[in-house]
Amino acid sequence: MTQREHFADRLHEAVARKGNPVVVGLDPRLEHLPADVLAVCQDTYGATTRAAGEALWRFNRAIIDAVHDLVPVVKPQLAFYERYGLEGLRAYVQTVQYAREAGLLVIADAKRNDIGPTAVGYAEAFLGTTEVFGSTVPGDFEADALTVNGFLGSDGIQPFVTQAQQHGRGLFVLVKTSNASSGELQDLAIAGRPLYEHLGALVETWGATQRGACGYAAVGAVVGATYPAQGRTLRAQMPHTLFLVPGYGAQGATAADVVGCFDARGYGAIVNASRSILFAFRTPAYAGLTPADAARAATQQMIAELRQALAAHTSQVAKPQAL
Amino acid sequence: MTQREHFADRLHEAVARKGNPVVVGLDPRLEHLPADVLAVCQDTYGATTRAAGEALWRFNRAIIDAVHDLVPVVKPQLAFYERYGLEGLRAYVQTVQYAREAGLLVIADAKRNDIGPTAVGYAEAFLGTTEVFGSTVPGDFEADALTVNGFLGSDGIQPFVTQAQQHGRGLFVLVKTSNASSGELQDLAIAGRPLYEHLGALVETWGATQRGACGYAAVGAVVGATYPAQGRTLRAQMPHTLFLVPGYGAQGATAADVVGCFDARGYGAIVNASRSILFAFRTPAYAGLTPADAARAATQQMIAELRQALAAHTSQVAKPQAL
Repeated sequence: MTQREHFADRLHEAVARKGNPVVVGLDPRLEHLPADVLAVCQDTYGATTRAAGEALWRFNRAIIDAVHDLVPVVKPQLAFYERYGLEGLRAYVQTVQYAREAGLLVIADAKRNDIGPTAVGYAEAFLGTTEVFGSTVPGDFEADALTVNGFLGSDGIQPFVTQAQQHGRGLFVLVKTSNASSGELQDLAIAGRPLYEHLGALVETWGATQRGACGYAAVGAVVGATYPAQGRTLRAQMPHTLFLVPGYGAQGATAADVVGCFDARGYGAIVNASRSILFAFRTPAYAGLTPADAARAATQQMIAELRQALAAHTSQVAKPQAL
Repeated sequence: MTQREHFADRLHEAVARKGNPVVVGLDPRLEHLPADVLAVCQDTYGATTRAAGEALWRFNRAIIDAVHDLVPVVKPQLAFYERYGLEGLRAYVQTVQYAREAGLLVIADAKRNDIGPTAVGYAEAFLGTTEVFGSTVPGDFEADALTVNGFLGSDGIQPFVTQAQQHGRGLFVLVKTSNASSGELQDLAIAGRPLYEHLGALVETWGATQRGACGYAAVGAVVGATYPAQGRTLRAQMPHTLFLVPGYGAQGATAADVVGCFDARGYGAIVNASRSILFAFRTPAYAGLTPADAARAATQQMIAELRQALAAHTSQVAKPQAL
């Protein structure tokens, strides 16, 4: 289905409606799933990728049921599905469909990248429509937005931008990633400024052709929560770019670390947590709860932390303007 | 199936056996396939992604039949399969299996990238094995090598290196890509040297832990044929890194442009062509031939061009040593 409304506005509305910017990362790992889910799938399908895919899908469905009324966005990470091949990807397709029917926006975290007609193939699959013998069909892996890797330059981004704009979808380009070694390339100094700032400037350009009513572009950036100072710098330099901020929770970042990615209104960023929500039932803090109840409680905890930090942030940011 | 032999040695042997370093890129586009292939698939399955997947697979099978005795390697580009969703990926799986049974090495051109456990998921899918309920199964998208994007640094590469080494598989990390805008990031000057040279140095490091008997590592580099001067520089700076060289043919590069990517023995690089072989039947030069015969003739033409240029290259490179 083609969305007419601008992606940034759809995201803005979803965040406003839910009252928080939390993204639940759907990164299921078979080895961490609840024993009862695993048992029923193995009993039915044996030790097969079909059983694995079925377990991923059942677990995701329970998580979506538990959090869909709380958060605006979910973000399945494709690697956890591709790991189980076609059956794993079938679970991804089921998950996306179920999440969208539950009113959630879906970001496919696939970090795809290529050039020209090849990039068009990925863009059609995740963001647009494909021609099949003269019929136009939605991409099978259809999501509301896609993460992409910008290392190939404009040739590698433009086909995604085109599909995103035509169909009311969004992109998030990797700019400064949350991992420890992200600086090996991303922090290299070019004319006195780190590479990620040069890339940030390119991302602002790529999003400039069409901005939503909210002021933000359909081309966003991935900015890791684990680098708060860099997040603040990029926020100032990229005033029209939405940030997808991973690294909260299990990767070590806190609410205080991410507030610098938000604008003065407390908007402009969404914050992802995966393990700390999906596998909350395995931690002492949520002992005794079902996996779904633990995920819901961990999500509510994260929402409360972010609300508090954002309230402090927006009042602080507002102060100099009031002087 | 796990390969015990080092990937670089397997590739070396395959190139020596076939007597050329040609990679046929399996990038089928539905809109360019032969009319009879399209007709039979549409008649059987209607205007569906199933029909599209079937058409890709039938076309690939004909191409593999036509070239498997000529070349050492084929390289399916994942985007052209993902474009048609699960049915497209089924065609990818069938293609890889058929190509490997025909004795070809397969490079999955997927440009995957992520960190930590997420990267492990991709690495298991394409290069290794996955645990499913205590059973070890080969990755569903299993290939002999995978292209990856190194923008995330070592954290994003090490999981691929680990799987590759355990299973006798290879990687090709994007270093200097063939597209026009590749310089927007890749050519940025860091301490007087372009980014791609810094990345090239990292790639040599990533491959240093285990080299094959041929002297090359399992971690290779993608170096576009469209930038011959940069290819020569990188060849000198990366003496243990195999180059996968795209851009030949339809993207404009010639045999003279790629020889600088080879070492003094005429080894160390493999050269990909996709459109100029797959769709040779649509060009005046091969008018009247079947698609398979045209692909075979175009492949023979490319092999002849490369042999001639490489003979000149190795004799030229050898001269200074003889002095």
